[in-house]
Amino acid sequence: MTRVNETHAPDLRSWVGSANEDTTDFPIQNLPFGVFRRRGSSGPFGGGVAIGDQILDLAAAAASGALAGDARDAAVAASRKRLNDFMAMGPAAWSALRLALSRALRTGATERGRLEGCLLAQRSAEYALPAAIGDYTDFYIGIHHATAVGRLFRPDAPLLPNYKWVPIGYHGRSSSVVVSGEPIYRPLGQSRAEAGDPEFGPSRRLDYELELGFLVGPGNRRGEPIAIGSAESHLFGVALFNDWSARDIQPWEYQPLGPFLSKNFGSTLAPWVVTFEALAPFRAACPRAPGDPEPLPYLNSERNRASGSVDVQLEVLLQTEAMARSGLLPARLSRSSFVEAAYWTPAQLVAHHTVGGCNLAPGDLLGSGTLSGPHPEQAGSLLERTAGGRQAIALPSGEHRTFLEDGDTVILRAWCERSGARRIGFGACASTIHAPKRAP
Amino acid sequence: MTRVNETHAPDLRSWVGSANEDTTDFPIQNLPFGVFRRRGSSGPFGGGVAIGDQILDLAAAAASGALAGDARDAAVAASRKRLNDFMAMGPAAWSALRLALSRALRTGATERGRLEGCLLAQRSAEYALPAAIGDYTDFYIGIHHATAVGRLFRPDAPLLPNYKWVPIGYHGRSSSVVVSGEPIYRPLGQSRAEAGDPEFGPSRRLDYELELGFLVGPGNRRGEPIAIGSAESHLFGVALFNDWSARDIQPWEYQPLGPFLSKNFGSTLAPWVVTFEALAPFRAACPRAPGDPEPLPYLNSERNRASGSVDVQLEVLLQTEAMARSGLLPARLSRSSFVEAAYWTPAQLVAHHTVGGCNLAPGDLLGSGTLSGPHPEQAGSLLERTAGGRQAIALPSGEHRTFLEDGDTVILRAWCERSGARRIGFGACASTIHAPKRAP
Repeated sequence: MTRVNETHAPDLRSWVGSANEDTTDFPIQNLPFGVFRRRGSSGPFGGGVAIGDQILDLAAAAASGALAGDARDAAVAASRKRLNDFMAMGPAAWSALRLALSRALRTGATERGRLEGCLLAQRSAEYALPAAIGDYTDFYIGIHHATAVGRLFRPDAPLLPNYKWVPIGYHGRSSSVVVSGEPIYRPLGQSRAEAGDPEFGPSRRLDYELELGFLVGPGNRRGEPIAIGSAESHLFGVALFNDWSARDIQPWEYQPLGPFLSKNFGSTLAPWVVTFEALAPFRAACPRAPGDPEPLPYLNSERNRASGSVDVQLEVLLQTEAMARSGLLPARLSRSSFVEAAYWTPAQLVAHHTVGGCNLAPGDLLGSGTLSGPHPEQAGSLLERTAGGRQAIALPSGEHRTFLEDGDTVILRAWCERSGARRIGFGACASTIHAPKRAP
Repeated sequence: MTRVNETHAPDLRSWVGSANEDTTDFPIQNLPFGVFRRRGSSGPFGGGVAIGDQILDLAAAAASGALAGDARDAAVAASRKRLNDFMAMGPAAWSALRLALSRALRTGATERGRLEGCLLAQRSAEYALPAAIGDYTDFYIGIHHATAVGRLFRPDAPLLPNYKWVPIGYHGRSSSVVVSGEPIYRPLGQSRAEAGDPEFGPSRRLDYELELGFLVGPGNRRGEPIAIGSAESHLFGVALFNDWSARDIQPWEYQPLGPFLSKNFGSTLAPWVVTFEALAPFRAACPRAPGDPEPLPYLNSERNRASGSVDVQLEVLLQTEAMARSGLLPARLSRSSFVEAAYWTPAQLVAHHTVGGCNLAPGDLLGSGTLSGPHPEQAGSLLERTAGGRQAIALPSGEHRTFLEDGDTVILRAWCERSGARRIGFGACASTIHAPKRAP
């Protein structure tokens, strides 16, 4: 777990002016990584770092002579069309590049002359997935979400007996994870509202899930579990993640082996990955209720108890087609917080995932599961926000929503703020719902 | 669905003498694809075709001048370190190469002189996974397995209401799929035998699952379902597959999202992929019981009803360390058949998987799920074979087994035979259980 260092100093300023604005997600204390190219280009994607409203092109930066040694080697690895090679290098390389970039982008840095030509405005960029995702696992660590969903099925015992022992997770579909901005097609599928034969058609209960995605760093060999004490060094960073869900397909298909078509039609990952080092000022204890069991030893460490979680604020916004046409801004549907929502820490997810010998690889994605607070206005999904579709949400356009309609755009945002630290943000994770392309 | 053609003629003989032996899995009518290199070599793996007890090296064959046109182009694509590029080419290319190889390997072929130098004995080869598996999905189409497992939980209604409507499947872990011969490490994990706190340790109920794996060919773009009528043209071939399972970890972890650590510690795929074209003489109808619902239209076609399944015979063998030391051959634990076991056809799996818009990619793996017959001696897992661990199996060594011990080797075999056709086999899918490498 990386400590606070000079790169986090709240008074650092950058010669990239927009990085010093109060409202930016990307001050010099953040320096998240992504993969981009000039919008409309047919050239290859390459790694970059967000700074204010600009992107520092890492291939150009490495070639400019502004970086040296380990930082330059890391920038070369990070300049490829996906960040996997850089993710595989581990914390020392990540940290060397962060420190070098922090120094080179500061006000007064002598590298300014060489780096000014390496910037591209974010408004002129398009993005690809930051990593080639070999495997995607979705966890279920949002305890208020698990409780709210469980209550629909088991009012007296909403949480299953394993919940506070096992970081519940399942394997997701990696091929349909797309970067923010890509369309999401409403899935066709079977559902059964009542007893009787199932129906087939487009999902009528299409939902989002507000999640954080953790991108794996070096990973492990098959048969070699990662101990809790070193687990976080195998996580490169964090990005906003929306695990779209078809709530009518899910109940009919999911017994006994879990969700399948209700989830695998698409998931949206934000373009910017905030490193764990950038999150150092915002670490927090994972709250436990009195009487909760002590985690088993493979999930337990003093440091994990003290500061295994991260204080990330989250929100969901919705903009319908009609709202966009009328010039209405996206409306906030809910606000939530990772530290309040998450029963398990990122390190515990790594330790659990590998304890049986499963191998993680650089670029693998671990979703947190839906991050809801205990109250409806903190819900990370419409299922919870509308009480299972029974309480429609009124929108500024006069429209109402229980579940998503075609043309709706869902935008996830997140940020960290704490006194004595510079606020950092995660950018946006947004996709628009499209009608199914064609019936089969 | 490929028709029977000249490559299936039962009287074809090869100038590779071992291909003409009655007992070979790999007569000239089979021609399965795999990826190999000389055992102990540090060179790259490359594509090959099994013929008798030999492997035809496709890179060498393409370079020899013995192949021309589309067949040569296909051989070049198939000669790479994984078969994904070849799988992506589709049935016309697969078929062109099969026909050319069939003609060139026949007794009297003029290509013999150029191809004799392209052979390597299988006993001198080692194998890699035939494809880079982007995503692995495991289905649950063995209806007798689903019934037997369901009976343990719900004696009165063992099959869930969705079973005969939905080809039940879930996402598996692709990173831990290994080729036959690789060790399988006994997983550590949580389990809970009785009420009370869970225990942590090595699994005590380690099991195999007898499956077939279907390797995806061209696949589809996200949002574009594959219709049942063309579904099978998106399947390259079939290989034996063992989806190892920890039966004590599974019940404690799997609610509500399905199996996770109980499955993701390893799965073993055979090296040889038998093409769907090679299976043409063995097509069969998928049996349905009176009163079973008609499949929904997206899962239904006349051809699928008439011949969507394949008559593949299956068996499981076990050899313990003590048996191997005493020179005892592997003992057969059970015999089964795909066509008897499988409630859904391979084409239905493709149509269902993609109907919501999920994209399949070349080399993706679709597991069938455990293929058990209705009787215990047809069980595809020890869970069923030993009645949940209550009825130990006696072995020729005097040992007994309920679940697997360290040092046990499980061998899956399969073959097709039918009067008027040459018998073809699938080779073997074998792995040995090892103790956990280390505690975390």
